Amino acid sequence: MATMNAYAIGVDLGGTNLRAAAIARDGALLGKVGGKTNLKEGRDAVIEDIVLAIRALRDQFGHDSLAGVGVAVPGFIDIQHGFIVGSNNLPQFDCFPVRDDISRKLGTPVILENDANAAALGEKWLGAGRDVNDLVLLTLGTGIGGGIVSGGRILHGAVGMAGEFGHMTVYPGGNPCGCGNHGCLEKHASATAITAMARMLHLGDFPTAAEVFELAKGEGENAIKARRVFESAGAALGVAIANLVNIFNFPLYLLSGGPLPAWDFFAPAMIREVQQRSFTFRNTKTRIEKATLGNEAGLYGAAYLPFLHH
Amino acid sequence: MATMNAYAIGVDLGGTNLRAAAIARDGALLGKVGGKTNLKEGRDAVIEDIVLAIRALRDQFGHDSLAGVGVAVPGFIDIQHGFIVGSNNLPQFDCFPVRDDISRKLGTPVILENDANAAALGEKWLGAGRDVNDLVLLTLGTGIGGGIVSGGRILHGAVGMAGEFGHMTVYPGGNPCGCGNHGCLEKHASATAITAMARMLHLGDFPTAAEVFELAKGEGENAIKARRVFESAGAALGVAIANLVNIFNFPLYLLSGGPLPAWDFFAPAMIREVQQRSFTFRNTKTRIEKATLGNEAGLYGAAYLPFLHH
Repeated sequence: MATMNAYAIGVDLGGTNLRAAAIARDGALLGKVGGKTNLKEGRDAVIEDIVLAIRALRDQFGHDSLAGVGVAVPGFIDIQHGFIVGSNNLPQFDCFPVRDDISRKLGTPVILENDANAAALGEKWLGAGRDVNDLVLLTLGTGIGGGIVSGGRILHGAVGMAGEFGHMTVYPGGNPCGCGNHGCLEKHASATAITAMARMLHLGDFPTAAEVFELAKGEGENAIKARRVFESAGAALGVAIANLVNIFNFPLYLLSGGPLPAWDFFAPAMIREVQQRSFTFRNTKTRIEKATLGNEAGLYGAAYLPFLHH
Repeated sequence: MATMNAYAIGVDLGGTNLRAAAIARDGALLGKVGGKTNLKEGRDAVIEDIVLAIRALRDQFGHDSLAGVGVAVPGFIDIQHGFIVGSNNLPQFDCFPVRDDISRKLGTPVILENDANAAALGEKWLGAGRDVNDLVLLTLGTGIGGGIVSGGRILHGAVGMAGEFGHMTVYPGGNPCGCGNHGCLEKHASATAITAMARMLHLGDFPTAAEVFELAKGEGENAIKARRVFESAGAALGVAIANLVNIFNFPLYLLSGGPLPAWDFFAPAMIREVQQRSFTFRNTKTRIEKATLGNEAGLYGAAYLPFLHH
């Protein structure tokens, strides 16, 4: 089946799941395939799975109208060489020319992008940011990552390391971080930090953010403690987002990730901090909102990459 | 005298001085005029002075090869309408269509820009940033302002308020700021903050940053105190710049303003903080340097604006 419009194929290569989607230029989802990332079978097997997924979609939707292929991966991207650099989730790919390898096997150009950057772009194209050209996305997970979309394009920085929001200092004398700093945002507001704070309040051994959320919805002493955990996380997010608002004056700041369902427990403290700490926020129509694409954001953003380059 | 190359005219409208320069596309300074900003005689008199200065340069260097006129002003710019909004230094210009008024009187288009943004652009064109396309400039004065050059262009934000580095929170429980926040960078590292800290250490009634610098160069107890003032300012700058490095991953961060001569007293503490707080800094060739154009940066950047738009 060939489409009238041009379409692109996006791939989201995660440490656990490998997914690919064909998406038309107008954003219509044409088809999607997915499975596990077979890291145990080695790098070449994973690349073969990527190539097979792309070929399946290309055979289905046509060679001629394929605008291109975008691949979102965890870790930093060496854009010039098409490497993944320093990915904890994909160590086998470190400094391997993954972009050119896939490209050669497909006979079509491939664009590589960091997954958090791709997610920011996905939200801009088809998610919570579709009405703006400038946004910041923060992804709350084990750590905190994110992406910056400026003028409709990803802001990469000199070597693709822009958007390291998790290591913004929010409390100069705060919790120690593996990066060598104290008070990094992700040590006060990531899913991991929520677990650590809940543990310090004896809310379980290693309660997940979802479990702390369940506690917060309840009643009694533990509910109050669980809410205070989210208030702490929200306040730390607020300090960081206030800085981002003062720096960028963008119209939209999005949050995504595991703790998002607990929005009502952390957002009030977050907004309070931003209001106090940013006159730009108080004097402009700045929005701080939930991202809407969830795990699909990186996949969709990957598919958008070829359209940006044409 | 007509030049072979196209040239542009830049104007720097400050609260004290009004300057204009004709600069060739290759950066050669063709001519410069300047005087006081006659605010006492009213807004129209100031605008007349601006128009006269531009006309004088245009008559000298030719109508035909004039690429355009850029005007740098303190305060936020309403880009759409060409207004200056909320300038403490030029209250008479608030919400007056200054861009269109000058443009009409000259019969040529005029581009309005915030002075700190123009300074960042000037440093990129002819100053410390001439070898990069992406930089951040922080200007240390009564407050702390700055500008962001991304991909060779000014990053404005939604309503021209990007680059409010002075109100980044560096110490969440720090000094109170008139903006409603606590711990704003400019309350810990501006020239004003240096004066306030020196006063707290009994180094004088209201010692200027230059006077504190003189003390720091000396010997004895007061020299030690004066150095500690600069160390505090440097540490606060380091917290902020580490955040900027983690956010932007730009190759260059520049400082300008009154305290710059005291670089050797504040930079070590600043760099120490950045090194601790930014693995991006430690793992990339990120430079933190003095701006080199001083008070000329805004003037030169204003002249560069027409070239960016052509």
